[in-house]
Amino acid sequence: MSDNETTAQITLSIDAMGGDFAPKEIVEGCAIFAKKHPEVALILHGDSDKINSIISHNPALKNAKVVHADEVVGMDAKPSQAMRRKNTSMWSAVASVKEGVANAAVSAGNTGALMAVSNLQLRTVPGIHRPAIAAPWPNPKGASVVLDIGANVDSDPDQLVDFAILGEAYAKALFGKERPSIGLLNVGSEEVKGHEDIKEAMRLLRLHGSSLGMDVYGFVEGNDLSLGTTDVVVTDGFTGNIALKAAEGAAKLFATFLKESLTSNLISKIGAFIATSGFNKLKSKMDPRAFNGGMLLGLNGLVVKSHGGTDAHGFSNALLVALRLASSDYQSTIVENVARLNQLRQVQQKTPAEA
Amino acid sequence: MSDNETTAQITLSIDAMGGDFAPKEIVEGCAIFAKKHPEVALILHGDSDKINSIISHNPALKNAKVVHADEVVGMDAKPSQAMRRKNTSMWSAVASVKEGVANAAVSAGNTGALMAVSNLQLRTVPGIHRPAIAAPWPNPKGASVVLDIGANVDSDPDQLVDFAILGEAYAKALFGKERPSIGLLNVGSEEVKGHEDIKEAMRLLRLHGSSLGMDVYGFVEGNDLSLGTTDVVVTDGFTGNIALKAAEGAAKLFATFLKESLTSNLISKIGAFIATSGFNKLKSKMDPRAFNGGMLLGLNGLVVKSHGGTDAHGFSNALLVALRLASSDYQSTIVENVARLNQLRQVQQKTPAEA
Repeated sequence: MSDNETTAQITLSIDAMGGDFAPKEIVEGCAIFAKKHPEVALILHGDSDKINSIISHNPALKNAKVVHADEVVGMDAKPSQAMRRKNTSMWSAVASVKEGVANAAVSAGNTGALMAVSNLQLRTVPGIHRPAIAAPWPNPKGASVVLDIGANVDSDPDQLVDFAILGEAYAKALFGKERPSIGLLNVGSEEVKGHEDIKEAMRLLRLHGSSLGMDVYGFVEGNDLSLGTTDVVVTDGFTGNIALKAAEGAAKLFATFLKESLTSNLISKIGAFIATSGFNKLKSKMDPRAFNGGMLLGLNGLVVKSHGGTDAHGFSNALLVALRLASSDYQSTIVENVARLNQLRQVQQKTPAEA
Repeated sequence: MSDNETTAQITLSIDAMGGDFAPKEIVEGCAIFAKKHPEVALILHGDSDKINSIISHNPALKNAKVVHADEVVGMDAKPSQAMRRKNTSMWSAVASVKEGVANAAVSAGNTGALMAVSNLQLRTVPGIHRPAIAAPWPNPKGASVVLDIGANVDSDPDQLVDFAILGEAYAKALFGKERPSIGLLNVGSEEVKGHEDIKEAMRLLRLHGSSLGMDVYGFVEGNDLSLGTTDVVVTDGFTGNIALKAAEGAAKLFATFLKESLTSNLISKIGAFIATSGFNKLKSKMDPRAFNGGMLLGLNGLVVKSHGGTDAHGFSNALLVALRLASSDYQSTIVENVARLNQLRQVQQKTPAEA
């Protein structure tokens, strides 16, 4: 991507029908975003009557383009179904990226379907085995990025190295870190430091990471995720998905217990009322909407996945993630690093003794 | 175990030197427990001078027996080191169970070492492939039990079925549930419901579970852990260890944000002070000490693992877990179920077409 293109107008392509509260919250989210970023062009895909009716109440969207799509990918649709239907708002939103009309697509629709539709249209960056889904993970210092959180159920050591490259580029673009640190998720038991695959992945990560100038921290444990020990945490999609949901569940349980405890007697209720401003601060810190914008990584194009249950505010944050990535050299960093990795892998295969 | 034995005096064997704050917090924990349960006999293993000096300030421990052991297994010792040293307080505490002198051993020492030392002395129940470590997991209704949380880094489908039997017996004994529900931890993506091993484990679990009268719920996801969707959650030690630590990390992050938010301004500070009783209630609900007492499952003898960093109060809870298990028919339930499972497995192997 040349400098000219980078400073050219950014266009975001939006699946207006994906998500539990689409199209209303999605289009309203576009309006919130458009007020802050009038310089960004928006294309909304879906039922044009419904979309235009919401746009008519939102003057910030007066310049938004609407592309009609007859069908909607249901929130419980199977990926294989979604791949066969090319008249959906989701397909259409991703197609705009493929055709070069938009710089990034954003959808709050079904994750598996979005991955399938995006993979089919955009294909993976040459050299990347499989795409991955990355999620931001909050910590006291800000956030780190964790991947894969569910695109794959099995990942071999080579794929985990791919994920490290994808995650590093994402952390650079999203957090502005020059040299993000990279951890590989593992168990903490002393002698038996994980299974063979994870040990081999660390060997490869150290080997290739040093050639690529990566800051490979080493193994991290489950509690390191919320501590923010590293900027990037690499794991397979099975473990990553369960760790993310386990952490979200624990945070919700804490919130439930907090509410129960503070409403258990009148004095506590009064105290909690007085401390309202503090609690509001807490709410904004733990607000999952602030961390909205999972990312499909490793494709020839940018696709951001918003939480399905998001509201307008949350969706606008997903658009912000898309803008930040589209304005960065994220995509070219990945392509360059993967090309170099493939060279390293070939050299290694030719001279295994020296590797 | 006959009724006579069940009502006979229970004896607990304690590794008084294991844990970050041993022997002081361990022995004091024994004193807290002894006040509530003077009917239980206690044997404390370790440096007799140090132990006796703490006992002398705790009249509740006047009947406790002290068995001297010269050495201590360090908190960072390798399992292989611990297995070779037979003069340690840990080895001695487990030996009392092996010799039939005590009904259960309790240690706050190094987990890997405790598993190795216990496995070497007690051996697994015939038919159980590998022992597992189980942890109680809090939820709004109370707690469920999750296993394996780190004894194994790889688990095949047969082992996951073993874990279901172990976990079911544990939930019966600890929570008094007649027919605990059993879930298998998996990812939530729609079409690709986990890898081949997890699908095969579910097939075996349903097959054998119905013969054994188990309540097999099906797959559960990471967020189901804190929701308490099932009484038992079965997973491999790699995923279980990471999920547990990720959840603990998220809860700690929430607590950090809560504290920061409520001390951010004077009004919030005052409100929080007024709500002190509510916060104390929250503290007691989230108190990790209340859930102290991981369990080494699948051995020919009861071994309870306390958190290494526990204080006296937490250690007394681990002793309570040991007492509850020792007073139940937990061990005989496992032996019976595993014997029946092995019969089922043999029948299945002989007549694969009918299985």
